[in-house]
Amino acid sequence: MITSRHPKETFSSTTRIVLPNDTNTLGNLMGGNLLHWMDIAAAIAANRHCRRVVVTAAVNNVSFQKPIELGEIVIIESQVTRSFRSSMEVYLEVFVENSVSGVRSRCNEAMYTFVAVDQQGAPIEVPQTVPETQEEKERYDGALRRRQLRLILAGKMKPSEATELRALFE
Amino acid sequence: MITSRHPKETFSSTTRIVLPNDTNTLGNLMGGNLLHWMDIAAAIAANRHCRRVVVTAAVNNVSFQKPIELGEIVIIESQVTRSFRSSMEVYLEVFVENSVSGVRSRCNEAMYTFVAVDQQGAPIEVPQTVPETQEEKERYDGALRRRQLRLILAGKMKPSEATELRALFE
Amino acid sequence: MITSRHPKETFSSTTRIVLPNDTNTLGNLMGGNLLHWMDIAAAIAANRHCRRVVVTAAVNNVSFQKPIELGEIVIIESQVTRSFRSSMEVYLEVFVENSVSGVRSRCNEAMYTFVAVDQQGAPIEVPQTVPETQEEKERYDGALRRRQLRLILAGKMKPSEATELRALFE
Amino acid sequence: MITSRHPKETFSSTTRIVLPNDTNTLGNLMGGNLLHWMDIAAAIAANRHCRRVVVTAAVNNVSFQKPIELGEIVIIESQVTRSFRSSMEVYLEVFVENSVSGVRSRCNEAMYTFVAVDQQGAPIEVPQTVPETQEEKERYDGALRRRQLRLILAGKMKPSEATELRALFE
Amino acid sequence: MITSRHPKETFSSTTRIVLPNDTNTLGNLMGGNLLHWMDIAAAIAANRHCRRVVVTAAVNNVSFQKPIELGEIVIIESQVTRSFRSSMEVYLEVFVENSVSGVRSRCNEAMYTFVAVDQQGAPIEVPQTVPETQEEKERYDGALRRRQLRLILAGKMKPSEATELRALFE
Amino acid sequence: MITSRHPKETFSSTTRIVLPNDTNTLGNLMGGNLLHWMDIAAAIAANRHCRRVVVTAAVNNVSFQKPIELGEIVIIESQVTRSFRSSMEVYLEVFVENSVSGVRSRCNEAMYTFVAVDQQGAPIEVPQTVPETQEEKERYDGALRRRQLRLILAGKMKPSEATELRALFE
Repeated sequence: MITSRHPKETFSSTTRIVLPNDTNTLGNLMGGNLLHWMDIAAAIAANRHCRRVVVTAAVNNVSFQKPIELGEIVIIESQVTRSFRSSMEVYLEVFVENSVSGVRSRCNEAMYTFVAVDQQGAPIEVPQTVPETQEEKERYDGALRRRQLRLILAGKMKPSEATELRALFE
Repeated sequence: MITSRHPKETFSSTTRIVLPNDTNTLGNLMGGNLLHWMDIAAAIAANRHCRRVVVTAAVNNVSFQKPIELGEIVIIESQVTRSFRSSMEVYLEVFVENSVSGVRSRCNEAMYTFVAVDQQGAPIEVPQTVPETQEEKERYDGALRRRQLRLILAGKMKPSEATELRALFE
Repeated sequence: MITSRHPKETFSSTTRIVLPNDTNTLGNLMGGNLLHWMDIAAAIAANRHCRRVVVTAAVNNVSFQKPIELGEIVIIESQVTRSFRSSMEVYLEVFVENSVSGVRSRCNEAMYTFVAVDQQGAPIEVPQTVPETQEEKERYDGALRRRQLRLILAGKMKPSEATELRALFE
Repeated sequence: MITSRHPKETFSSTTRIVLPNDTNTLGNLMGGNLLHWMDIAAAIAANRHCRRVVVTAAVNNVSFQKPIELGEIVIIESQVTRSFRSSMEVYLEVFVENSVSGVRSRCNEAMYTFVAVDQQGAPIEVPQTVPETQEEKERYDGALRRRQLRLILAGKMKPSEATELRALFE
Repeated sequence: MITSRHPKETFSSTTRIVLPNDTNTLGNLMGGNLLHWMDIAAAIAANRHCRRVVVTAAVNNVSFQKPIELGEIVIIESQVTRSFRSSMEVYLEVFVENSVSGVRSRCNEAMYTFVAVDQQGAPIEVPQTVPETQEEKERYDGALRRRQLRLILAGKMKPSEATELRALFE
Repeated sequence: MITSRHPKETFSSTTRIVLPNDTNTLGNLMGGNLLHWMDIAAAIAANRHCRRVVVTAAVNNVSFQKPIELGEIVIIESQVTRSFRSSMEVYLEVFVENSVSGVRSRCNEAMYTFVAVDQQGAPIEVPQTVPETQEEKERYDGALRRRQLRLILAGKMKPSEATELRALFE
């Protein structure tokens, strides 16, 4: 049985075109559609980490920096940053590529959290994460602070217990 | 022209059944679908606040506490908590109602942020929010801290400048 | 076991925005989409009456009074008017809210009939309906005439047997 | 310009398979989906009568006689029964064909009413209907009674004025 | 048990309107949607030949001769040309009918191949095909050459063994 | 203006999970859905070659070698093999990755042809293709034979004129 994974083993990339079907009343990609596409992309990365059924546990701080237009190409890249006992944080980057100029720009990033479950839906243990690059190590460290933040916001941890997170404000 | 609104004026409620079309491989509602439904529900509340076209700007800390099953009824309630210059934070609560027992339980809450835009997509000013109940006032105050947190995470504010947020950790 | 319900216990409200995905070639909400949305809204009210699986049995006299445009908000309210042995008539009202002016107008009403079934699809008995308000009582009485009409049109009743319906023409 | 049409010139037939995507929680075709499919089939017949944009004006007395199962083949036939000034009544028959035995049975019929409109959505005149077969003539005559019934139910006609409809009860 | 079928017994016709939901960024029907619709139409013809579950095995030489516009009516006709041991070739013709002029033109033809399978997905024998008209006989003969071509392209047959296909080039 | 491209510049990869929504009555991915997904993946590669609007012109010899099951991960890779005056042939490979074992297998390949068009839908010239690897050169050469085959099947070329294709049978 596999007990650890490198983030790059979980990497997933997906490419889509914005079709009329996906747009809001301004003719741009609806936020809700992008959230849905990111959920699927993140689920693939989480599945590649643990090779079990995974379910969405949390979505953290997605920001939409500029509208994505009809006909533009959307590239979503996802990769696990850190696993805890049965949960995994997935980092997502969204790029938009103009279909005429070919210019690609980064328009969005997000963190989704997934939990691995058995067929009854009970959480099960997942492999550990072993970050390699500098960037992966930073995201690995940040994952703990984001987890503390998430537990505080959910009322499951007191701010005074969140040692790593508090350090940010001192 | 309207210059302020009470949160309750923006209240929106929507009710859906989980159909086979909406499920994941375990037969439960997919996280991505719920994120999409919440985006639409939040857009309605934001539109009712400003009566302009609104676009999703951010999604903050959604957590999924338990699976929602095929055939269950999902109720999504949304309401603006606080508006800033051109953005509005929307509070969402998701309830699930078992279609056999009728038992309703709260399974999810989230904050989405929307921006009001003109036909060119440029941000435009929105009315102020005037909270009335104790709960609305608490959410109104919290919105400032969540905004600081969002700006810090997006690298647009230094932790040291986030006065209200820092107070939480002291 | 519950043997009767008030109509208001079955009340359901749902709110949607008309997206490009839902429109016909004139850019208005397609009739077929609205019929589908109303079917789901009515099924929720019927389920709340009997708490069993319900299936659509009939649709009666829906009229569409004016087009609903892209970007408008649609509110569908549904409530059981009267139950028979295993069937329930559901009253639906559709409102459209202009997303710029906020003006809300009633644009549609309909009656759908549902049947409660067991897991083999066989009809099962449902609680009785106890109307309270004057409006609920009128709809309760009308339900019998509409049922006679429906049975006549389906060739399952002779016009001469439809005592309540005939009274309308005398 | 064409001033009259035979019903058979407007005949349309469409064939579909019930896919998982179309089912309710019992694994049968959802009523709302069938209503949507019938709306499209009826719009094609109405368009073939007048060759203009048509919009759904009313749905009358659809009944669902037995569940249609996953994997079954659904055949929807539609044909205009009678046109009035700018509206057309369309008769729909739905057949289900078992994909294993090949047995085909009639499971549903309905009347939908459409209105022909110009690009501003204003009603415009349509050709007259010239029924040919005995069956077409009976549906043509019945259309007037159904129209009276629809106007009465919509509060636009008094029962006492509905000469043809009243004759049914005498 | 049925051991042979005439092609006409498998004939299927389906009629659709191109809705905004089906279009590409030019406002025309997307190729991918038409491929999907043709797959369903072909599956119905193949099912009518063998009355078993059928799965798509191959798609051969579909060409799209001109764009199909929003609001146009699409008619897809399908019919089995020839069956082999467990596979069936289906011939598809696509017509487009302008919704204003009523002019109908042939815009597309294709061959799809299906395999009949049991509940475990294993191939099972199907009835033979008995062509009747001159056109059906030509398509029946051509099916053998197309099958050889398909096997060569898949590397499962040597060009030298494809007797009927080679005759075409001599 | 760019006058030539290497195939690798057009490479696109997309990753999806088979959801209940995408399955046939056996619970496997429907052929028609995969054809649709491949069409979008191929359009992205063709767009990257010419940076213009592209429309599907032909689909050639797709074969489906084994069923893809609910919950499996599907990876579609696409790349232009050769451009002609205004058309481009795109090579697609489909892989399926089991979500439990992680085993990835190649299950499908196809050639799609796209045409670059201007805003009126008229064909426009595209850059030439400069293959680099041995595999790319073989596909580049094969594209001419496949084009001859396509023109013969469409009745636009005589077998005797298809010099490169005939060589295959001698």
